Amino acid sequence: MFPLIEPTLLLDKQKCLSNISIMAEKTRKNNVIFRPHFKTHQSHEVGRWFREFGVDKITVSSVKMAEYFAQDGWNDITVAFPVNIHEKDRLNRLAEKISLNLLVVSPETAELLGKEIHHPINLFIEIDTGYHRTGVDPENTDLLDAILNRIDAYPNLTLKGFLTHDGHSYKIRNDKKAIRNIHQNSSLIANTLKKKYSQRYPDLIFSIGDTPTCSVADSFYDIDEIRPGNFVFYDFMQVAIGSCALEQIAVAMACPVVATYPERNEIVVHGGAVHFSKDSLALPNGNSFGKVVRLTETGWSTEETGMYIKSLSQEHGIIHAEKNQAKNFQVGNWLGVLPIHSCLTADVMKTYKTLEGETITMMR
Amino acid sequence: MFPLIEPTLLLDKQKCLSNISIMAEKTRKNNVIFRPHFKTHQSHEVGRWFREFGVDKITVSSVKMAEYFAQDGWNDITVAFPVNIHEKDRLNRLAEKISLNLLVVSPETAELLGKEIHHPINLFIEIDTGYHRTGVDPENTDLLDAILNRIDAYPNLTLKGFLTHDGHSYKIRNDKKAIRNIHQNSSLIANTLKKKYSQRYPDLIFSIGDTPTCSVADSFYDIDEIRPGNFVFYDFMQVAIGSCALEQIAVAMACPVVATYPERNEIVVHGGAVHFSKDSLALPNGNSFGKVVRLTETGWSTEETGMYIKSLSQEHGIIHAEKNQAKNFQVGNWLGVLPIHSCLTADVMKTYKTLEGETITMMR
Repeated sequence: MFPLIEPTLLLDKQKCLSNISIMAEKTRKNNVIFRPHFKTHQSHEVGRWFREFGVDKITVSSVKMAEYFAQDGWNDITVAFPVNIHEKDRLNRLAEKISLNLLVVSPETAELLGKEIHHPINLFIEIDTGYHRTGVDPENTDLLDAILNRIDAYPNLTLKGFLTHDGHSYKIRNDKKAIRNIHQNSSLIANTLKKKYSQRYPDLIFSIGDTPTCSVADSFYDIDEIRPGNFVFYDFMQVAIGSCALEQIAVAMACPVVATYPERNEIVVHGGAVHFSKDSLALPNGNSFGKVVRLTETGWSTEETGMYIKSLSQEHGIIHAEKNQAKNFQVGNWLGVLPIHSCLTADVMKTYKTLEGETITMMR
Repeated sequence: MFPLIEPTLLLDKQKCLSNISIMAEKTRKNNVIFRPHFKTHQSHEVGRWFREFGVDKITVSSVKMAEYFAQDGWNDITVAFPVNIHEKDRLNRLAEKISLNLLVVSPETAELLGKEIHHPINLFIEIDTGYHRTGVDPENTDLLDAILNRIDAYPNLTLKGFLTHDGHSYKIRNDKKAIRNIHQNSSLIANTLKKKYSQRYPDLIFSIGDTPTCSVADSFYDIDEIRPGNFVFYDFMQVAIGSCALEQIAVAMACPVVATYPERNEIVVHGGAVHFSKDSLALPNGNSFGKVVRLTETGWSTEETGMYIKSLSQEHGIIHAEKNQAKNFQVGNWLGVLPIHSCLTADVMKTYKTLEGETITMMR
């Protein structure tokens, strides 16, 4: 591999393209709209890779990110986060240029948008299908109707449909059946809501997010659009959930060994919370902040090493090694680390290096 | 306060200056070198505030950060992280310009530095006084001597002294006596090592880090230099440890309310892992990812609100409210959040806004 100097987020473009291809093919086969979430990669260049697969609609998680991707020619963007009305000026500027889809969870926000936005925009009502983070209880038809009435009251507002993020799928561990159950529950809710509202809104769609259900589902029933994001890279959390194989993870942090402690079965690398952020996966003996792999001439091996990051400081990563293993490493060696949560790791790193040595920048 | 648009990291400059002043005064009174750690604020401008208090020596946590502060005229910098020898070219460029102090924990690294660095540099040997992250066991005199022999073998290498970071103080909760015990233990180790090595190295110093012990200690005994960093802002973790008062925390994130769920006693704000990073504090009923305060015309109130962030997604912060409290808030309101770990929060935000409305940039 090219010379490595400091902690570097390696990106295997071929794995990444393969992940995109599988998801794109699945949406084509099932005739659902593919609106990938770009919050994972946050990069113009990685975004362009999706165009080869026919993608022209995207999802982002903030207005700032919508602005960033609009600058690169994306003109149909869903901001999948409940509107912060203080951003109205930025929303107006975006709505003037592109087809902008926003998320509302209350009549108050719909009302404020009606008053403050001076260009046509589309609204999704977020539905809480079980994650209990944000969204409207699908059985709370009073609230749904109150929001719909506010949307209908303003000519610039058009109901696009209902949207959910099945984030409770992230609590599952290695159980595809449990993931499918969540997916089917959301499909049933989609069916009920579409039956109830399709006559009034013939064009309404139902949109789902989350990489676990989108990765595992074979059929999409009453779902019209999917918005997975993490699948572009996957990560060790997704392997633990059961969404993907270890071989599909497309990013790994290259970290230099800076100290070894064979008597503690530990190796210390430069690679800390400022490189990985700090999501962890509970293991029987404690938390893992990253799975350690060996780097190879052409990328990394997915062969089991028995090593994982057991704790992170701002710059230090402490690797747990198996007995008698740490003595095989010395300062200056490089190790790879598959992130627990690639979205947050990418967010703090702000740069990728492809295995071909190309530097890819991200939103700042 | 000035108009707020999106999640904004507010910086109370007066509290910050007061925190610096207290620590600077303590070092003057005790005749110890004040070499503050700049990894917390990572900002040229905040760094300049220290100059008013006579600071001309600093600590950083990476070579990149040393380069950033050297650009702003700092010319005596300790990189308090075990050397990654792959950065030798950058180290050579720095060593040519400034007084550079590096950290070694093995004879191998000292040897590599001797061979690869072509300008005079100073080395600290990191001592493990109980944190067990990196550093040499102070009783392992064979290893200490092996490192010292490598240092002595190369004319460009000078032993500056011994250095420790008492990071185990972070496990303490609200117990100043326990913090002082850690401090006194390190002082004893300083005494022993200085007795043993002062004849051979008459100028050697013993340097300690960590905000808890430096904040709580009244005397420094055999310690010659302190390197606290977090104290410049403090945070809610430091309050929990017992290092500072709530009123001393100098940063708060302003977050807009985007949804309320009175039936769940929850409020959702824009303010997620990309704003706070993801350190948490264990509370009896779960983890807190930030303490919620009310914003005022001139900053924030430290009056108890009973609210805290109970979970963070990439962009969402879910606030736990007390019974019947959530209904008092509506979308568009602003709340303040005192970070659990201000270093990591600053690192992901990359920008501060002072209470006077000035934007302060950081290292990118």
